[in-house]
Amino acid sequence: MEPLTDLFAERVLNVKKSFIREILKIAADPEIISFAGGLPNPNVFPVEEIRAACNEILKTDGPNVLQYSTTEGYLPLREYIAGNYNSKYDLNIQAENILITNGSQQGLDLISKIFIEKGDNVIIERPGYLGAIQALSIYQPVFHNVTLKKDGVDINELAHILTAHKVKFYYGVPNFQNPSGITYSYQNRLKVSEIGQQYNTLFVEDNPYGELRFMGKDLPPLKTWLGKQSVMLGSFSKTVVPSFRLGWICADKDIMEKLIIAKQGADLHTNYFCQRVVHSFLSNFDVKSHIEKARKAYKEQRDAMVTMIEKYFPPEIKYTKPEGGMFLWVTLPGEMSSMRLFELSIKDKVAFVPGDPFYVDGGGENTLRLNYSNSNPEQIETGIIKLSKAIKKMSGETISLNV
Amino acid sequence: MEPLTDLFAERVLNVKKSFIREILKIAADPEIISFAGGLPNPNVFPVEEIRAACNEILKTDGPNVLQYSTTEGYLPLREYIAGNYNSKYDLNIQAENILITNGSQQGLDLISKIFIEKGDNVIIERPGYLGAIQALSIYQPVFHNVTLKKDGVDINELAHILTAHKVKFYYGVPNFQNPSGITYSYQNRLKVSEIGQQYNTLFVEDNPYGELRFMGKDLPPLKTWLGKQSVMLGSFSKTVVPSFRLGWICADKDIMEKLIIAKQGADLHTNYFCQRVVHSFLSNFDVKSHIEKARKAYKEQRDAMVTMIEKYFPPEIKYTKPEGGMFLWVTLPGEMSSMRLFELSIKDKVAFVPGDPFYVDGGGENTLRLNYSNSNPEQIETGIIKLSKAIKKMSGETISLNV
Repeated sequence: MEPLTDLFAERVLNVKKSFIREILKIAADPEIISFAGGLPNPNVFPVEEIRAACNEILKTDGPNVLQYSTTEGYLPLREYIAGNYNSKYDLNIQAENILITNGSQQGLDLISKIFIEKGDNVIIERPGYLGAIQALSIYQPVFHNVTLKKDGVDINELAHILTAHKVKFYYGVPNFQNPSGITYSYQNRLKVSEIGQQYNTLFVEDNPYGELRFMGKDLPPLKTWLGKQSVMLGSFSKTVVPSFRLGWICADKDIMEKLIIAKQGADLHTNYFCQRVVHSFLSNFDVKSHIEKARKAYKEQRDAMVTMIEKYFPPEIKYTKPEGGMFLWVTLPGEMSSMRLFELSIKDKVAFVPGDPFYVDGGGENTLRLNYSNSNPEQIETGIIKLSKAIKKMSGETISLNV
Repeated sequence: MEPLTDLFAERVLNVKKSFIREILKIAADPEIISFAGGLPNPNVFPVEEIRAACNEILKTDGPNVLQYSTTEGYLPLREYIAGNYNSKYDLNIQAENILITNGSQQGLDLISKIFIEKGDNVIIERPGYLGAIQALSIYQPVFHNVTLKKDGVDINELAHILTAHKVKFYYGVPNFQNPSGITYSYQNRLKVSEIGQQYNTLFVEDNPYGELRFMGKDLPPLKTWLGKQSVMLGSFSKTVVPSFRLGWICADKDIMEKLIIAKQGADLHTNYFCQRVVHSFLSNFDVKSHIEKARKAYKEQRDAMVTMIEKYFPPEIKYTKPEGGMFLWVTLPGEMSSMRLFELSIKDKVAFVPGDPFYVDGGGENTLRLNYSNSNPEQIETGIIKLSKAIKKMSGETISLNV
């Protein structure tokens, strides 16, 4: 008899184990300074407030918070999310436009499920968010890339792709993108939207880090101009806690109807208990000052990393200076390999993620992602010094390191 | 410009809003006696124990239980599940064979994702579990049906389908099936397995209600005979609480590798906080006596419904007598429509689910599903009396109702 593995669907035949997962396993060693993961700073988690919220809802709404619930999610939580969009960006979002998902990652899966057929065209940033590449890939689209520049995506590339192909959707992270830390400027958002409006294409704007802006001015989502053509993804992973896996999709009614059916088939509904915990937390505590505390911590970590890079990295090495979020992006001189740098730095107990997994079309071998949100300033200094030494060793030449 | 709905993938073009969802909305009216849903009895939820578990893990493992975690799930919880299988059924399951999912419903989605291509053959029971029909349908398989009889599935039909078609997988619920309440006998399990072993087909055995056996003897899973050919789905929704959406897949290593990749793309990982809560609950409390309490409550409800049906329904009406679980299945005389019965009974404020959505190939118009786990014995008596009257009214003839 043939092996059971002969039964696999084509869509999973070529998917590989994630290289990043392997790195993260190595980086879990407590002796290693890890700039590799994407873990929020646990010191800002509202542990006591979450405990109070658990107690409150179990005491006051006893068995109900433990029962099955609706596919769409807890209505007051959806109202809160809608209200937040409206007050911040003067939009007209209703609770019925919000579907609670298992993190915004599930939003990516559900959107892909209802839109992508094998061979369909999608656009993603270059470098792109790895979780999106994974979620979309299983539906076998053709990826097109728009290059991320200092102030957003390359407008000419975007226009070119949209003219040349019928594109199902564009996926992007306009605020403090993962992996690059880049933010689309106001002008860039405007231009992306102007071009987008000319095509029958959806724009999926993911915004996991939006609330973690620690400098500069908050910018409106593409939805401001794109209206129904925009689907927004959001998450409580960075503003409340990640382990609850609570995110949402904000979409127009017609799309929402299909998303709800897909969500019901996928898992009936999102963890209802934790929806209630988060809603209780948001209702009873000073969330504004909690987020302020998080911003302050992230800014300190970001500043430490930028300062140390300025101090220790050779001047040929370029890097982004994020205004929020958890990552910055390093570009080595063209001939240098970040994979080779990883081999060297891991021996010295520093981990990061080499850039090429973020490029669906290859390239990026001389880039890397550094996460600063899960290390304290001392670890950041030590880690950056060690990285500098590894760069020096790798280059094999006398780059003038200020070490 | 064309509407954005033109962009939908073929797989969601023909999916419909669930009729049951609409029924459940009506049945949410507190004046209605609802035999429609599939809600566990909330009186047996361990509210105080869950509260203690929340407090314990937040106090002792503070920020960690709120951080991101692994795709596979919390290792001690996976070890617990594996150990449970081994001690109950003398199997050799390891933690690496267990993936924690968002309820067993997500198990259905992930298994479909890695196995089903459009047009692939799958087998499902007739009547079949609606959640499975929904989860599988989105991957566009061809459904084949094996009829459920008093002691399990029709063996000849099963053999016939497996001979005539290359089948990706069989999906069944051997214990107290939803919707029928039927349990495969030991002999039936043995025969299903003997036939299955001759074909390169996977057997997905779902077991959400297995622990809720309140009479008769526990029976071994198909895996006992089918080994690697079996994938088991399990759930804490009925033994602990449903709102946490915690289930699992138990599968062989090669299959597990693809499942983990699919799970990672779908939502990174299952709510980690609630995995920890459930593990703490299972470790610190007398789970055995908790489940005993649940069994007792369900038996009381089941007995009330069976007794009332015996007393009030006309003798031509057939029904199953489940040995566990939450449902029983009623078959009206052939010429009677359960949809018509629903129209009549809902006016009298009693709801149930008409049987035809459980038949992927049509039929079942004279059948209906009754849930007893969410009504107390008084409501069950009142509801069954009202149903009897509606049957009498519908038949329009003088069936001798004992009312």
